Amino acid sequence: MKKVVIGLSGGMDSATLLGYLLEQGFEVHCCIFCYGSKHGIWENKAAEDLIDFYQNKNFSIFGHIINLTEVFKDFTSSLLKSGGVIPNGHYTSESMKSTVVPGRNLIFSSILAGLAESIKAEAIALGVHAGDHHIYPDCRPEFISNLDKTIQASTERKVKIIAPLLKMDKFGILKLGLMQLKIPVPYALTRTCYTDNKLSCGECGSCTERLEAFTNLGVKDPIQYLTYEK
Amino acid sequence: MKKVVIGLSGGMDSATLLGYLLEQGFEVHCCIFCYGSKHGIWENKAAEDLIDFYQNKNFSIFGHIINLTEVFKDFTSSLLKSGGVIPNGHYTSESMKSTVVPGRNLIFSSILAGLAESIKAEAIALGVHAGDHHIYPDCRPEFISNLDKTIQASTERKVKIIAPLLKMDKFGILKLGLMQLKIPVPYALTRTCYTDNKLSCGECGSCTERLEAFTNLGVKDPIQYLTYEK
Repeated sequence: MKKVVIGLSGGMDSATLLGYLLEQGFEVHCCIFCYGSKHGIWENKAAEDLIDFYQNKNFSIFGHIINLTEVFKDFTSSLLKSGGVIPNGHYTSESMKSTVVPGRNLIFSSILAGLAESIKAEAIALGVHAGDHHIYPDCRPEFISNLDKTIQASTERKVKIIAPLLKMDKFGILKLGLMQLKIPVPYALTRTCYTDNKLSCGECGSCTERLEAFTNLGVKDPIQYLTYEK
Repeated sequence: MKKVVIGLSGGMDSATLLGYLLEQGFEVHCCIFCYGSKHGIWENKAAEDLIDFYQNKNFSIFGHIINLTEVFKDFTSSLLKSGGVIPNGHYTSESMKSTVVPGRNLIFSSILAGLAESIKAEAIALGVHAGDHHIYPDCRPEFISNLDKTIQASTERKVKIIAPLLKMDKFGILKLGLMQLKIPVPYALTRTCYTDNKLSCGECGSCTERLEAFTNLGVKDPIQYLTYEK
């Protein structure tokens, strides 16, 4: 069975990616990264719930919990417990730049690649998508293309990158998960919010874009929000 | 003061790199990675001793100890505690391939880059050199060149790679540290051996190449070996 390694954040993008890869017939190895983010406790739980969901349906899926809290302790980002206030609003806003965690995707991808080489997986899969390109340099096609060459050079061309969502926005991703995949993607188990509230806030950049995607698709988001009903 | 971030293994290559960067006038931030290698306890101590040495001479140098044991727990390599026996002999030998730790340099470099961006350092410096190219894909110029592009793409072109030893072999590195730099490089504090012995074995690939470099330069290696006197 062909193997792939992914980072599973517990958000709707990586949940969709997971469903897509399982439908493609991959044995999926999911790394759950704990890196000191404010929302970490909730998104890590969501990731574990997603793995349980598919394991109970007898899919070939494995979880690897990886604690990187110490790695990011001296890093600067409003997304981290050590950082300032997370701004509300759209990702396109200049203020959202404070949510960039320096090197995060590069660090996560490097670990995925090392694990992939170790367990003889043919690829790593990333959930990066077009909505992230504006403020996150490590989600842009140029970065992914360079990263692919770097990983291939470092693994004697054994490990490739798959990024099936790269050209999609949140709407396209949700449409893929809800209407195009044959296997279910349990969005009720996912967690998108950047804040440390148990209930998603409905106002941060991450919630805003998720809610827009559901609205545009004419589907009610199955998770509960703190402020959305106001 | 211009800042640079390096990985300090405690071996002779990174010790020489450190001396070179301090002489260039950099404030040097040293990451000491604990990643579950058999020789980790000794090389981590050597790295701390090197930092103490230069701090006592009032150089601008800072240490960041980063525990990655959990990251590498499912990785395969004879260098890791979880792996098999470390072969003796030359790096050019096919058998030495078992000492490759998948993704190690990519993971370390990614963390260096993220920290560099966080503390506004202009570069990361790597101690990779020509002697490593044969068996370690993640020490080859092609990898370094791709990695540089990847890091620049992920940091909005803020962080560059410096690899001043890239074209040198161990002999050239030792010559640089002992005869060309003005500031001292305390090789007596360094630790090169791959085994978990307190004293260096003198027989593994790493010891073999170190001893050859000292012999070729006509200088006695100041560290004590288990077997070298035989």
